[in-house]
Amino acid sequence: MSLEVFVAETFGTMLLLLLGTGVVANVALAKTKGNNGGFLMVNFGWGLAVFAGVYVAALSGAHLNFAVTMGLLFNSDAAEYAPGVDKTFATTLAYLAAQMIGSIIGAVLCWLAYKQHFDEEPDPANKLGVFATGPAIRSYGWNLVTEIIGTFVLVLVILSFGNTPSGLGPLAVALLVVGIGASLGGPTGYAINPNRDLGPRIAHAFLPIKGKGGSDWGYAWVPIVGPIVGGALAGIVIQFISFPAVAA
Amino acid sequence: MSLEVFVAETFGTMLLLLLGTGVVANVALAKTKGNNGGFLMVNFGWGLAVFAGVYVAALSGAHLNFAVTMGLLFNSDAAEYAPGVDKTFATTLAYLAAQMIGSIIGAVLCWLAYKQHFDEEPDPANKLGVFATGPAIRSYGWNLVTEIIGTFVLVLVILSFGNTPSGLGPLAVALLVVGIGASLGGPTGYAINPNRDLGPRIAHAFLPIKGKGGSDWGYAWVPIVGPIVGGALAGIVIQFISFPAVAA
Amino acid sequence: MSLEVFVAETFGTMLLLLLGTGVVANVALAKTKGNNGGFLMVNFGWGLAVFAGVYVAALSGAHLNFAVTMGLLFNSDAAEYAPGVDKTFATTLAYLAAQMIGSIIGAVLCWLAYKQHFDEEPDPANKLGVFATGPAIRSYGWNLVTEIIGTFVLVLVILSFGNTPSGLGPLAVALLVVGIGASLGGPTGYAINPNRDLGPRIAHAFLPIKGKGGSDWGYAWVPIVGPIVGGALAGIVIQFISFPAVAA
Amino acid sequence: MSLEVFVAETFGTMLLLLLGTGVVANVALAKTKGNNGGFLMVNFGWGLAVFAGVYVAALSGAHLNFAVTMGLLFNSDAAEYAPGVDKTFATTLAYLAAQMIGSIIGAVLCWLAYKQHFDEEPDPANKLGVFATGPAIRSYGWNLVTEIIGTFVLVLVILSFGNTPSGLGPLAVALLVVGIGASLGGPTGYAINPNRDLGPRIAHAFLPIKGKGGSDWGYAWVPIVGPIVGGALAGIVIQFISFPAVAA
Repeated sequence: MSLEVFVAETFGTMLLLLLGTGVVANVALAKTKGNNGGFLMVNFGWGLAVFAGVYVAALSGAHLNFAVTMGLLFNSDAAEYAPGVDKTFATTLAYLAAQMIGSIIGAVLCWLAYKQHFDEEPDPANKLGVFATGPAIRSYGWNLVTEIIGTFVLVLVILSFGNTPSGLGPLAVALLVVGIGASLGGPTGYAINPNRDLGPRIAHAFLPIKGKGGSDWGYAWVPIVGPIVGGALAGIVIQFISFPAVAA
Repeated sequence: MSLEVFVAETFGTMLLLLLGTGVVANVALAKTKGNNGGFLMVNFGWGLAVFAGVYVAALSGAHLNFAVTMGLLFNSDAAEYAPGVDKTFATTLAYLAAQMIGSIIGAVLCWLAYKQHFDEEPDPANKLGVFATGPAIRSYGWNLVTEIIGTFVLVLVILSFGNTPSGLGPLAVALLVVGIGASLGGPTGYAINPNRDLGPRIAHAFLPIKGKGGSDWGYAWVPIVGPIVGGALAGIVIQFISFPAVAA
Repeated sequence: MSLEVFVAETFGTMLLLLLGTGVVANVALAKTKGNNGGFLMVNFGWGLAVFAGVYVAALSGAHLNFAVTMGLLFNSDAAEYAPGVDKTFATTLAYLAAQMIGSIIGAVLCWLAYKQHFDEEPDPANKLGVFATGPAIRSYGWNLVTEIIGTFVLVLVILSFGNTPSGLGPLAVALLVVGIGASLGGPTGYAINPNRDLGPRIAHAFLPIKGKGGSDWGYAWVPIVGPIVGGALAGIVIQFISFPAVAA
Repeated sequence: MSLEVFVAETFGTMLLLLLGTGVVANVALAKTKGNNGGFLMVNFGWGLAVFAGVYVAALSGAHLNFAVTMGLLFNSDAAEYAPGVDKTFATTLAYLAAQMIGSIIGAVLCWLAYKQHFDEEPDPANKLGVFATGPAIRSYGWNLVTEIIGTFVLVLVILSFGNTPSGLGPLAVALLVVGIGASLGGPTGYAINPNRDLGPRIAHAFLPIKGKGGSDWGYAWVPIVGPIVGGALAGIVIQFISFPAVAA
């Protein structure tokens, strides 16, 4: 993988996390202009965060999400990760690394943009909630089920895009994320992306955030394992329901 | 009809119902993150549920709704149900079967994704409301009128898409569903699709949902008959107002 | 003008008014599922009402609004009203007639879809508000200014569409209407279309709506004159700021 | 630069500011129909204001924002400001002048459209808030950081559009602005455009607005310097992460 592809994936994931954690900060932290803006605003914020990230990451195919990388890996109909990027162990690790670096930087930039609001927010749980997802009702098993289902839908539809030419490009995945958030985000806050949760959680752990509490590492494995399983499952299932040769 | 077409229609309807019932669960059930998210969020949730379903069901023409199948059946300008799928009694039944199977599976997946929230929700009416539509003011006659009008608009515009090339593809029908929900969803909760109501209602009846009440079978015929009548009517009317040969 | 063109314009305006007045009914009338859904929901409802109407009215160029007809009439760069439809006194009247018929039928269908909610709504002002616009602060002069500005923006941008190929088609005008509603709808409820107001107001006057009050005919000229002036003005101004020959 | 290009940029920025300040007036001023419509409505209002402006300003490349002009100036991969418009000191000033004139006129039109609501609004801060941005928590340094980050994202993604053909045209930048507003608008109300803030602030200073207070000139440099720095930075950075020759 060339450096250019690596940088593109890093920048795309950085924008995704900056804008994505940003909308949560706007809705959740004290004294912001978007305080209490509603869940639909959060859904549009995350969807359009993907939208922005995809444009910047054209060279890498804009995975921005290790679950998407997994979906492509397990879908033998997909020949490569991006034009000119083979599916190997090394490139898989390189996508993961770029996504992790980008997601951590994005979360740091969000913290800088909302610095004073983090300082004035009294509740440590709201601070953590900007960085990491957490379940509405804690139950690792059921939380895992929710994350698997949500990511399965995400990756299955992304892998189907090629069969229905719509000319929407980045908008299609943005709207898909808006929809999954509105529909399946209720129980766990929809990580549906391991990097989306782990990167900012690491940032939460090392940043000198005033009055922060713990980083809830006990839950951290759920939004990693769930999306990876859901994405891989979609990569396998898509081969049984998609027939490009027939559709073409 | 090939197995591939049947599977595509099943998966598309499954995604439609999973995401569609999901957004209602998110807004209606106890302790979710989207609780009380507003009717516009429900409208976008259902619209984008269609969006996701259409991409996965490219092979079958993505009816996902027996009212659409009826519209195509009654519109003699439409030569087939999908590329290579003739309009026969057998294929009509096959679409109905695929849609029913998909809608039941979708509702079951929604129940799994929101399992704990169903468990903690105290009101049986809210639980049923995730699965099946119900009228704001019960009056079978007027409820039927509302469902006929809503579905007539839906299918009439879908059958018109071909005359106005917009390059939007699945987005066009998604936005149409957002709009019909916002505008005509007030009285009955807009089934505008027999499968959308019957499939999940069956799931509600057989699933071991904690503390559930009855499945309100007395109302079940309205969101079946209304959409079928509205869809067929649109298929007939479109032939009098659409003139592709002139427009081309 | 052929009968087909007339029928297309009639059906398109009918859908615009059915869905447009529908979203107001949903937000304003007693016991609906979208009650108190917010102004943004009203904006999306009207925008997507245009979206639906445009698809059905492809043959007539989908004016759906006499202000648009006026904009085309006064813009000498526009050679005809629609492919094959000359700009004459007779065709101008025919558009007006089709739009009036369609808007009245649309309002009647909305009343049928929300029949029980009209019956149960106690406030006559809310009933009238579904059909006709009314100013937040009554002052015919300033209300006229607001309607002129809003319609000027609407028609100016519509007449500019041809210079910026975007492939969006009906979506572009739908989003424009969402935006004008959100931004300029605050003072008068944005008729920005003479038919949108007059047609449903006539329907309000003759329909046997339970417990209805007066139809506020004193205000009725504002949403007629304002949009006609604004649309004509846009048709004149566009000739000074648009240079298709240069842009091409 | 031809007069036509200058006029196009002026009209586009005028529409941007009319619709953009309009949505704030609708949400913030007394007795409007959109009063308290929520931050998401503000985000869509500004995004669709850009949408409308872009269509009218096709000839000038629709910068509508001096930060975009700066981004193009500092990005040596961009050969010109618009087809046939070289990047010189004179054309840079001409864009600035057109944007300033347009933004002032737009703000004046907004005041006219909402004249009575300005008159009836008791709070001078709400009146100023329609015209100019202001920080939720005043701290020039951190406010500057927020504006730099927001504008950097805006211009970076705009400059990336060419590498990901999506066919969306004006919609892409509109959605991007919706997203940045939702995600990064919490601390400062997102000027992300020097003209958006300075032009209306000048209008606020000279218009005879009933009961207005001061124009807060102490803050005025932040939404000028921040966006210019952010835009220029994006113009420089894009050269390191975008490789059209490879992507093509």
